[in-house]
Amino acid sequence: MLVVMRPGATPEQIKTVVERIRSLGFAAHTMPGEHTTAIGITGNPGALDPGLFEELSGVAEAIQVTHPWKLVSREAHSEDTIVRVGSMNSGKPSAGPVTIGAAEVVIMAGPCAVESLEQTVTIARAVKAAGAHILRGGAFKPRTSPYSFQGLGEEGLKILAEARREVGIPIVTEAVDERSLDLVEEYADMIQIGARNMQNFSLLRRAGRAHKPVLLKRGISATIEEFLMSAEYIASEGNYAVVLCERGVRTFADHTRNTLDLSIVPAVKRRSHLPIIVDPSHGTGRRHKVIPLARAGVAVGADGIMVEVHHDPEHALSDGPQALYPDQFVELMQELRALAPVVKRTIHSVS
Amino acid sequence: MLVVMRPGATPEQIKTVVERIRSLGFAAHTMPGEHTTAIGITGNPGALDPGLFEELSGVAEAIQVTHPWKLVSREAHSEDTIVRVGSMNSGKPSAGPVTIGAAEVVIMAGPCAVESLEQTVTIARAVKAAGAHILRGGAFKPRTSPYSFQGLGEEGLKILAEARREVGIPIVTEAVDERSLDLVEEYADMIQIGARNMQNFSLLRRAGRAHKPVLLKRGISATIEEFLMSAEYIASEGNYAVVLCERGVRTFADHTRNTLDLSIVPAVKRRSHLPIIVDPSHGTGRRHKVIPLARAGVAVGADGIMVEVHHDPEHALSDGPQALYPDQFVELMQELRALAPVVKRTIHSVS
Amino acid sequence: MLVVMRPGATPEQIKTVVERIRSLGFAAHTMPGEHTTAIGITGNPGALDPGLFEELSGVAEAIQVTHPWKLVSREAHSEDTIVRVGSMNSGKPSAGPVTIGAAEVVIMAGPCAVESLEQTVTIARAVKAAGAHILRGGAFKPRTSPYSFQGLGEEGLKILAEARREVGIPIVTEAVDERSLDLVEEYADMIQIGARNMQNFSLLRRAGRAHKPVLLKRGISATIEEFLMSAEYIASEGNYAVVLCERGVRTFADHTRNTLDLSIVPAVKRRSHLPIIVDPSHGTGRRHKVIPLARAGVAVGADGIMVEVHHDPEHALSDGPQALYPDQFVELMQELRALAPVVKRTIHSVS
Amino acid sequence: MLVVMRPGATPEQIKTVVERIRSLGFAAHTMPGEHTTAIGITGNPGALDPGLFEELSGVAEAIQVTHPWKLVSREAHSEDTIVRVGSMNSGKPSAGPVTIGAAEVVIMAGPCAVESLEQTVTIARAVKAAGAHILRGGAFKPRTSPYSFQGLGEEGLKILAEARREVGIPIVTEAVDERSLDLVEEYADMIQIGARNMQNFSLLRRAGRAHKPVLLKRGISATIEEFLMSAEYIASEGNYAVVLCERGVRTFADHTRNTLDLSIVPAVKRRSHLPIIVDPSHGTGRRHKVIPLARAGVAVGADGIMVEVHHDPEHALSDGPQALYPDQFVELMQELRALAPVVKRTIHSVS
Repeated sequence: MLVVMRPGATPEQIKTVVERIRSLGFAAHTMPGEHTTAIGITGNPGALDPGLFEELSGVAEAIQVTHPWKLVSREAHSEDTIVRVGSMNSGKPSAGPVTIGAAEVVIMAGPCAVESLEQTVTIARAVKAAGAHILRGGAFKPRTSPYSFQGLGEEGLKILAEARREVGIPIVTEAVDERSLDLVEEYADMIQIGARNMQNFSLLRRAGRAHKPVLLKRGISATIEEFLMSAEYIASEGNYAVVLCERGVRTFADHTRNTLDLSIVPAVKRRSHLPIIVDPSHGTGRRHKVIPLARAGVAVGADGIMVEVHHDPEHALSDGPQALYPDQFVELMQELRALAPVVKRTIHSVS
Repeated sequence: MLVVMRPGATPEQIKTVVERIRSLGFAAHTMPGEHTTAIGITGNPGALDPGLFEELSGVAEAIQVTHPWKLVSREAHSEDTIVRVGSMNSGKPSAGPVTIGAAEVVIMAGPCAVESLEQTVTIARAVKAAGAHILRGGAFKPRTSPYSFQGLGEEGLKILAEARREVGIPIVTEAVDERSLDLVEEYADMIQIGARNMQNFSLLRRAGRAHKPVLLKRGISATIEEFLMSAEYIASEGNYAVVLCERGVRTFADHTRNTLDLSIVPAVKRRSHLPIIVDPSHGTGRRHKVIPLARAGVAVGADGIMVEVHHDPEHALSDGPQALYPDQFVELMQELRALAPVVKRTIHSVS
Repeated sequence: MLVVMRPGATPEQIKTVVERIRSLGFAAHTMPGEHTTAIGITGNPGALDPGLFEELSGVAEAIQVTHPWKLVSREAHSEDTIVRVGSMNSGKPSAGPVTIGAAEVVIMAGPCAVESLEQTVTIARAVKAAGAHILRGGAFKPRTSPYSFQGLGEEGLKILAEARREVGIPIVTEAVDERSLDLVEEYADMIQIGARNMQNFSLLRRAGRAHKPVLLKRGISATIEEFLMSAEYIASEGNYAVVLCERGVRTFADHTRNTLDLSIVPAVKRRSHLPIIVDPSHGTGRRHKVIPLARAGVAVGADGIMVEVHHDPEHALSDGPQALYPDQFVELMQELRALAPVVKRTIHSVS
Repeated sequence: MLVVMRPGATPEQIKTVVERIRSLGFAAHTMPGEHTTAIGITGNPGALDPGLFEELSGVAEAIQVTHPWKLVSREAHSEDTIVRVGSMNSGKPSAGPVTIGAAEVVIMAGPCAVESLEQTVTIARAVKAAGAHILRGGAFKPRTSPYSFQGLGEEGLKILAEARREVGIPIVTEAVDERSLDLVEEYADMIQIGARNMQNFSLLRRAGRAHKPVLLKRGISATIEEFLMSAEYIASEGNYAVVLCERGVRTFADHTRNTLDLSIVPAVKRRSHLPIIVDPSHGTGRRHKVIPLARAGVAVGADGIMVEVHHDPEHALSDGPQALYPDQFVELMQELRALAPVVKRTIHSVS
C-alpha cells in the first residue's frame, strides 16, 4: 500500500497518516518528492483497505502496490532518486558531495584492491587528475579461493582515507560481512555490497541501518526482480540511498568473463527510481573491452561508470588483466566527456 | 596454413603459389590486401610443412594458423574487410552501393515482415527520409509455430524490389532454405541468414556460392568460435562478403527477450576482419529499449545497426512490440549522428 | 480446436466430422486412440465455435486448445503414442519392428560416425550382442568447422543398411538437409533431426512428409515449448511418428559439454503424448559420465536411451571421448536391465 | 603441497612433518585414511620445494597440488570421506549417528519451514515412519522479499530439537549468518549453508570452526570449481565434515524452477572425496517432478536425497508446491529402496 499526499500537503497531515499506519502495527516510510510526498506501508500481512487512509485530510489516494518491491518502485516514487556521496555523510574529514542520478555521469575509478599507501595514492592522484569523481578500492576482497589475497582489511580502509585526504574525492569500498560493514561505514563515504553478497540478507539489513549510501552490485545470475528486492531489503530498514550497479551476468558466452547486460539500465529506469551505474571492468574481465563497454554504458543511459585503474597492473594482487593503465583512463574520460551530451548528460571535472 | 606474400609480389608469383597448393590437392583462397596478399589453404587434413611454400619467390612467410577458423581470421587478413551492398552486385536495377566496415556506420531499417506493397513502401519512404542506408523486411519468416504467418514468399521479394525502385536504397532479406536463397539472391542486394539457421551448414554452403553479400546473424546460444566458424563455412565456398550481426543471446534474464551481448563487438574485431553490426530490436524485443541499445551499439564500435520500424505496429503481423514508430526512428537517427563522431565514425544521409 | 469422438463412434461419424472441417477450409488430423478418436483442426486463423461440431452425431465434445501446440499435446491425445521403428516402415529388407513408448525401454547404440563397413559391422555386432534394439550411426555429420570430417554420405547409408542385414536390428541416422533426408528416408528405418536443425523449419516440414518415424533432438537452448512446436511442425504435415530426444542444453556449467536436463522427461510426459528418450553421450561429452547419466535417464522415466559405442574410440573420426567401449556397454545394459523394473519397465534382448 | 606418508607411518613421524610445516609458518592439515595419512599444507604464498619434506622419515612423497582446491581434492585424500551426523556431535540429547558417503543412501526429509511444533512433529513422525534418516526443516529462511515469512528463528530450532526427541533422528537446518550459525550449531546435528550463501566467505569460515558437520548447497550459478572452493573454505578452518548438495542451477529453461544438474555427481566424485547429495525439491520446484528426479539422483550415484514433505502443503508458509504429501514420500522410499541395490547401495530403515 502506498499513500500519496496531495501537492502542498502539510507536515501535520503527513504526520497524521504516519501515525495511523503505526497504530495499525505497520511501518511507514515517508518519501518526499519535489512536488508530492508518498508514504509507503510495509509489514502488512495482506492487502489493506484504501479507505483506511483516503478519508484523512491531505491524502490524494491510497494505492495497492502490485509489484513485490515497493519502496524502490517507480510507483512509490515517480521522480528519480539522487544519491549524495561524501561530506554530508560523515563527521570525519571527507570530500564531495558527489550526486548520483542527476545530470552528471559519475565516474568511480581506482585499483581493484588496496595494496599499499603508495600504490593507492599514486592511482588516486592519476584518476583524480583525469577527472574521476569517486575513488574505488577494495580493502576486504571476497575471493573464490581461501588461499588468495583477501585484502588489507582495516589497514586498507585507513589507506583509502589517507588517499581521500590527499586527493579530495569521496571513497567507496566493499563490505563483506557485518563486522567489515561497521568499519566501512566508519571510514568510507559509500558502502559497496558485492555481487556474491547480493542475497546475503543479513548484510543487506545491516546496510539498511547504515548512515552512508550503498552501492549494490547485481548478483551474477540475479533477475531484475531479485536485484530490486535486494535493494528493497536495504530500503525497508530506512536507508533509501541505494545505487544499483550492473557488472555482468553469467552465461554460456566465453569471450568475456561475464556478459555485461546493458539492457538492464533502461529496464531498471522504468521500474525503479534508483540510480544505476555500470562496471565494465568486472563485466568483461579484459582491459581492451573496458573502454568500448564503458562508452556503451554511458550511451545506454547509465548514471555512472565504475572502472578499475592500476599504474602497474602486471603486478596487481587482484584482477590485473582488467585494470586500465592511467593513460587509457585519460583517453576513456575524454571519450565519455564527448559522449555524455548526446544523452543529455554531462561529465565535469572535480575542481 | 597461410602463405603471406611480400609487398609488391607480382600476379605471377601469386599464381605460382596457388598452383603449388592445388597440385597438392588443397584449395587456395587468395585474399588481396592494400599492401600485401595472403593465400589461405584449406582442405589439408593436418599440418603442412611451411618449407613447401617459403622457398617460392615472392613469399614472405608461410604460417600455421592456430585458430580453427582461417579465412575469416585477423591472422589471415589483418585489414578490416569492407563489404559492398547494392548496385555492383546485380545486373538488375539496384541501388547503392553501401559500404559496411568503413568509416560510415550503416543503418538498416524496415518492417519485420513484408505485409503488402503499401505497407512496405510507406515504411521504406519513412526510413529513407530519416537517413537509413539499407531497407530490411522479411519475405520468408522462420516462426516457432507452424500456424503463425510465414511470410509472403516470392511475392514479398517482388514488393521489396518495388520498394527499392521507389526509394533507391539496397534491400536485405532473409533466406530460410536453399530454395528461398535462390530467390533472395535473385531479388535482393544482401542475403540474411537468421539466428536459427546459423548452423544450417547446407544453407551456409549455398550462401557461400551466392554472388551477393551475406548478413549472418548470431545463433541464440552461439559462442564466438561457433559464430566465426559459420562465417568460415560461407567463406570456404568463396564468398568473403560476410557481415556478422549480434542480435541477443538466450540467458536466464527475463527483462528482455534476449540479452544483447555488446561485448562481442570488440571481441570479433580482435579475432576477425569481418564487419559486425548490432540488431537491438530482436536483442531486446521491446520498443523502449531499442533506442538506448542502438546508441550503445554504435558506442561499442559496431559497423552498423539494424532496427525494425513500422508505421502501424499495433497491427503488424510479426513482432509489433519491438518495432519503432517512424518518428522514433527519426529521433534515433539524430542521436546516432551525434554519437558517431565520438567513435570516429560518420553517419551520412543517402542523397 | 479438437473434436473428441464418443467411445464407439463409427468410421462414418468420424468421416462426417472430417468433411465438415475440410468444407470450412481447414485441415483435419484424425488421431485414433485405444478407446476414443480425436480430430485436431489446424489452419484456422482464430478461435472456432464449438457448436460447429458438437451437434454432429458421435461427437463427445469440441474443445478449444489453449496451448500453441495442438497435435502433439496431451489434450489432443491423452494416451501415450507408441512409435514403431522398422519392418513395417519400408518395402526394403528391414528389421524390427521396435516399439518406442510402450513398456520396453529402447536402447539405441552405435558409433557417432559411420567410418567404414568393417568398423560399423564390428560395432553393430557388439551392441546387438549386448542387447541394443536399434543401431545408430551418422552418415551426414553436421560439424562446427567446414574442415572437419563431414561423414561418408550415401556411402555411409549403404554401410548402415549392410550392417542392418548382418545384425537384424533397425537403423537410425541423421538427415541434415532435404537432399540427405530423401536418402535417409530411403535407406534407414528412422530419420534423426539433429539439435542444430531443431528449428530448420523447411527440414521439419520435409520430415513431416516422410514415411518413416522421426527422432527429433532438442536444440541446445530450446525451451520445452519450442521443442514441442518443432514436433508440431512435423505432425502438422501428417507424420505423427515423432520421438523426442533430450541431449543436453547449453549453460554456464563447464564440467560437462552440455548440461543434461533430465527434468524435461516428466515435463514432456505431462504436456505431450510423444515418447522421449535421453542421449547421455552428447549430453555429457565424457565416457565416464555416460553410464551414470544413462541410469538416471531410465530412472527418471525416459522411453529409451541412445548411446555412442566404439570399439576403438581413440581413433574415432568424431567424438571419440564420449563413446563407450563395448565392454562398458555390456555393463551398462546389465545395469539398465536391473533398473527398468523399478520404474515398471522392461528391457528385453532382441532375439 | 601435499605430503603423503608411507603406509604404517608412526604418529611420531606424522608429528614431525606437521611441526616442520608449522615452523615454516604454514598450516598443516592431517588427513588420516584407512591405509595412509596425507598432510595438506596451506598458507604458503607460492610453490614449495618437495625436498623440504621428502627427506623426513616416514614420508612417501611430497607432491605439488595442481588444482586450486587442496584439502577437498581426491589427490589429497583418495578414499571417500564418510561424514557422521548426530550423537557423536553433541553433548546434548541427540540421535544417530547417520553416516553419509558410505554404502547407505541417506534420506533427509521434512518441511521447507518449521511453522509450529504440531506441524513439525506431525511431519517428523511421518517421514521417520517412512524411513527417513535425517529430519530437515528451516528455522531461518532466506527469502527474496523482506516482507516474506523469514522463519521462526531460535523458536524454530527448539521445535526441531523437540521433534528430534520425539522421533529419534538427527536434524539439519540452515544458518543464514554468523549469529544464526551459533544457534544452529548449538541445537542441530548438521549445519546447512544455503545456495545464496555459497560464496558468503565469512559464513563459510565460521562453519569451518563449527563442531558439527556442514551441508553445503551449490550456488544457483556456481561452477564445480567454485563449489569445491567453497567447501575448501570450510575445510581450511579445520572442519572436514562437509557434504555437498546439488539443488539445481539457473538456466534459460522454464519448465522447472531450476535445472537439476545431475552430471555434477560423477564429476564431484572424480575430483573430490566429499559426499554429495541431491535435492530434487528445490531443483524442480514442482511436486510431480520430485519423485522421478529423486530416483534419477540415486541412479546417478548420489550419497543421499533431500526432499521436502508437508502434510498440508496448500497451507505451507513456504514453497508448498514442491512439497511431497506424506503418502507420496512413502511411495518414493519404496522406489528408492528398490533402486539402491542397482547402484550397489542400500537404504535401511532407522530402527
